[in-house]
Amino acid sequence: MLAAAGDLLLREGMAAFTIEKVATLAGASRMTIYKWWPSKGALAFDGYRATVEPTLAFPDTGDLATDLRTQLHAFVRLLTETPAGRVMAELIGQAQTDPELRASLLEHYTVPRRERAAEVMRRAQERGQMRADADPQVVVDQLWGACYHRLLTPDHPLTVDFADALVDNVLRGVAA
Amino acid sequence: MLAAAGDLLLREGMAAFTIEKVATLAGASRMTIYKWWPSKGALAFDGYRATVEPTLAFPDTGDLATDLRTQLHAFVRLLTETPAGRVMAELIGQAQTDPELRASLLEHYTVPRRERAAEVMRRAQERGQMRADADPQVVVDQLWGACYHRLLTPDHPLTVDFADALVDNVLRGVAA
Repeated sequence: MLAAAGDLLLREGMAAFTIEKVATLAGASRMTIYKWWPSKGALAFDGYRATVEPTLAFPDTGDLATDLRTQLHAFVRLLTETPAGRVMAELIGQAQTDPELRASLLEHYTVPRRERAAEVMRRAQERGQMRADADPQVVVDQLWGACYHRLLTPDHPLTVDFADALVDNVLRGVAA
Repeated sequence: MLAAAGDLLLREGMAAFTIEKVATLAGASRMTIYKWWPSKGALAFDGYRATVEPTLAFPDTGDLATDLRTQLHAFVRLLTETPAGRVMAELIGQAQTDPELRASLLEHYTVPRRERAAEVMRRAQERGQMRADADPQVVVDQLWGACYHRLLTPDHPLTVDFADALVDNVLRGVAA
């Protein structure tokens, strides 16, 4: 069910997403779906998470710069080359006036994803690849947060080159 | 009119904002207001810009780190200590499904503000305070974009200490 919901969402976007279509794709009844998900939005968001999770895994090869670039490239491609970007933008947008959606988005998506990114950075700190006094949670906002900024106020392009520049700036600094 | 609109918005937020109240505050008729602004949203956004502009000026004292900190502190305080934060969050949120609002927000707000921030950084590059090969537009996303990220997905606090950590990371880098 989740796979069917996620596939449909990433292929056709939120506008074309219906419980009926998911039911057909999954060979289930609408009744069954409503038993588990209270609304179309809840099913879409759950399907989204389940489907993008493998794409957005945080690698930990032992080299922080490479790992950040790998993850950010996958993240940027997901947001720009599939309907996932529009879906996330609309979810974050709606969350500004929908406290329940906001709570769910934070609890089930942004908080756990932040935590995983921070963990990769903490291991890099233990390996001596990152300053011990730099806060991984701040770096999260300067990498993924910067990408969301270009997604939500799209006056400059969100590209893999941009992702590489983000990693460069944050790792090396921009001071002359 | 703009001053009255901006004052009302920053004092009471978007929910309490009406054309009637602005008319009373400005001693003007509703007809006059409708002649110049097609909607409540348009008037609110124009009033917002006019009112926050002086607060959000970009200083250029000759020291990049100080100037960035000064501007970001004012920006963070505006977003967290006045209803401006909620107003901006709701405007960006609505812009995700309202192409006209998105175009207006980009043209009248984010693009010119980006440009002014980038100009301060280009002058710092000329003074040799910032690497010549660092893209000021990328730094914009890593400072102001990072703040918007905490505003829009509020799972970590948006504070002046956070702003200082952003400037530190981006200027010095986080590599050990």
